[in-house]
Amino acid sequence: MTKRIEADLIITGGIVLTMGEPDVIESGAVVVENSDIVFVGTADDAEAYTAPTVIDAADCVVIPGLINGHTHAAMTLLRGIADDLPLEQWLQNYIFPAEARNLDDDFVYWGTKLACAEMLLGGVTTFCDMYLFEDSAARAVRDMGMRGVMGEVLYDFESPNYGSIEKGFEYTETFIQTWKDDPLITPSVQPHALDTCAPELLVRAKEIADTHGVPLIVHVAETEGNREYVRGKHDASSFVYLDKLGVLGENFVADHAVWVDDEEMEIMAERGVSVITNPESNMKLASGTAPIHRYRERGITVGLGTDGAASNNNLDMMGEMDTLAKLHKVSDADPTHLGAKEVLEIATIGGARALGLGELTGSLAVGKMADIAVLDFNKPHLTPMYDPFSHIVYAALASDVRDVIVGGVPRVRGRRLVTTDMDQIMANAIQLAERVRSSLK
Amino acid sequence: MTKRIEADLIITGGIVLTMGEPDVIESGAVVVENSDIVFVGTADDAEAYTAPTVIDAADCVVIPGLINGHTHAAMTLLRGIADDLPLEQWLQNYIFPAEARNLDDDFVYWGTKLACAEMLLGGVTTFCDMYLFEDSAARAVRDMGMRGVMGEVLYDFESPNYGSIEKGFEYTETFIQTWKDDPLITPSVQPHALDTCAPELLVRAKEIADTHGVPLIVHVAETEGNREYVRGKHDASSFVYLDKLGVLGENFVADHAVWVDDEEMEIMAERGVSVITNPESNMKLASGTAPIHRYRERGITVGLGTDGAASNNNLDMMGEMDTLAKLHKVSDADPTHLGAKEVLEIATIGGARALGLGELTGSLAVGKMADIAVLDFNKPHLTPMYDPFSHIVYAALASDVRDVIVGGVPRVRGRRLVTTDMDQIMANAIQLAERVRSSLK
Repeated sequence: MTKRIEADLIITGGIVLTMGEPDVIESGAVVVENSDIVFVGTADDAEAYTAPTVIDAADCVVIPGLINGHTHAAMTLLRGIADDLPLEQWLQNYIFPAEARNLDDDFVYWGTKLACAEMLLGGVTTFCDMYLFEDSAARAVRDMGMRGVMGEVLYDFESPNYGSIEKGFEYTETFIQTWKDDPLITPSVQPHALDTCAPELLVRAKEIADTHGVPLIVHVAETEGNREYVRGKHDASSFVYLDKLGVLGENFVADHAVWVDDEEMEIMAERGVSVITNPESNMKLASGTAPIHRYRERGITVGLGTDGAASNNNLDMMGEMDTLAKLHKVSDADPTHLGAKEVLEIATIGGARALGLGELTGSLAVGKMADIAVLDFNKPHLTPMYDPFSHIVYAALASDVRDVIVGGVPRVRGRRLVTTDMDQIMANAIQLAERVRSSLK
Repeated sequence: MTKRIEADLIITGGIVLTMGEPDVIESGAVVVENSDIVFVGTADDAEAYTAPTVIDAADCVVIPGLINGHTHAAMTLLRGIADDLPLEQWLQNYIFPAEARNLDDDFVYWGTKLACAEMLLGGVTTFCDMYLFEDSAARAVRDMGMRGVMGEVLYDFESPNYGSIEKGFEYTETFIQTWKDDPLITPSVQPHALDTCAPELLVRAKEIADTHGVPLIVHVAETEGNREYVRGKHDASSFVYLDKLGVLGENFVADHAVWVDDEEMEIMAERGVSVITNPESNMKLASGTAPIHRYRERGITVGLGTDGAASNNNLDMMGEMDTLAKLHKVSDADPTHLGAKEVLEIATIGGARALGLGELTGSLAVGKMADIAVLDFNKPHLTPMYDPFSHIVYAALASDVRDVIVGGVPRVRGRRLVTTDMDQIMANAIQLAERVRSSLK
């Protein structure tokens, strides 16, 4: 017998959806060494490898870890404090007061850990976070062993974290220096939105992002009000305005991008701007429906996000895929739009490319990081199975995720977090929620 | 010590949402004797009872079993055979051929059992089914211990089950006689739709339904095409036409009712017609968005359904509630529409009333059937918890359902079906799917 090649981890026997080529391997395998994928192919060919950890994926579907392209992770601690309200009332009477009275490093650290727990258990291996006290958020993500694109939110007014915007730029510079070599964390620059950031702030943010070669991530045209604000103030549509400022480019990520016209889409395509769409949050806040099919027609890279848990109210990318697929069929009056495979692409490689991580993660290919989710299809709602893409997008739940690997390290096995003290996270979350409750009385 | 009152089952220590008055009992209990609820109140007061089975609901939320108001249960066996296609292509090239070549009593029995398994595990205790070989469907539901409103689909053309429509009426009469005294099954009369049923069929169906005092259930105005058909053929809107035929009344249940105008809503309200809305199916097939908020404003009873698994693609009422709440906010451009509590009402007591079971089930009240779901809230995505209604609609998953009782009998305990041979159902489903695959080659 030939000597086998030694590796660290083998996942074998399931249907592998690579999100690359070939797209489906019926009885497939993925082999991992250190943090990297060293083999993707048939289970038979994977017999050439041996490893101390072998995950039997019979009756399972193996996919790249999902990419949650936009969230405010620590808002898990504010999930459900107020719902079903007009946006301004929701923000001004509940969210802003709760944040002003409660946010600190401790709150963000534990809230982010709680978010990571939910996301890992739902097959998410990478997410992009915009919040405050982001250094604590990044520590939480690193401690949980997830991959994060992290950025401190910047705006014209005083921040409960850094104070004035000059301090905000300093905080961001330090944040980038601190985290730029971390294997899991990608620092970024995240000005809040066009109605909360002066043109000078946006230009300065762009300079910092370009200097360090990191993403520049902004809420753009989330609501009709956002669009009208820019029109009134700058006499231009959002992307025409941003283009005039010179801040658009391949590292520019537009969160939401709901109220955008054809002229803007041409500019976005030309500049290489990416979009992260957040359908459930846009629905719940009645913000509108983004023109995702038209973005895709123009070749604009689209990723998918849940937004924060206060406006969704979950970080469930499995459910978000289902909604993405269905929403655009009905809003475009065309059932062929956003098909199942296209939606899984958006939620994996699409998000990875949008965040500048397309070479690192988002598909199962040799040389990429081993960011992998294994879904157990031996369930009544997934039996029989004619098409794995259809089942993943339209029928599977976050709770069907059985195993999750990030950068070669198993973080979820048998639906349980294996490198985390979950009880401690839950206890801290409950305690911090008591503080929130008191602060709102 | 006072002698305790003997009962059969006690659920105690959780937050009880009765969907009646009082609406929330913080540390509550429900006591069951035989098939009925004999006590709803505080856990303290429930100390007066003793029972051989006590379910500890600490960290749980106790709700009435969910009512899936419209589905075609056995289509679980066709889930995912084709998606993302124009409606006619999907029906004519996939669904109709697959049905014509595969439907028989065996297919419907096992497909319905599979559907019941999925629904029970997701907290559904009652559902309404429209399909063929409905006697086998009813047997499956009874064998699974669920509550079902069941009806053989009737239309002008030949049925693979009964043949000509005269035989269809005979089948329906026999079906009603067979099942009318069953404690779990409510027979009904279910003409398919206005473009597949002649006026005479609808009138005759109404006579049969009224004679036996059972519901009359019809797909109405599901698509714009359905509406236009009726306009072209009968020179009237759908409900004006139905009203002229004299078939509307309090036992009339309209499935979908998407393309309906104000004049029709007035008629619906006046006649006491109910609506079952199926938002995910309407989205996936790009059929449109029903005017649910406006129905509710006019006092029209609304229930919620998943539709069949081939057009959703699941029977997950937890996910359907989330979508219902969000879809109408964005489509009405008003985030206050379809709030969390209102949505849970629609999915429980609303559906029960629509199906004529409002006195029997749909809320937790003394004298009603013990149809109960217990959700485990000790999960990262449900911690902390500020508002149980919000969490159930916007954050909880079908997999958070821990225990389910139907008519006093525990059918799910600890997320497992306890009175069913699940392996046998799965094995049969896989075998029948092989037949479907071959038939489509």
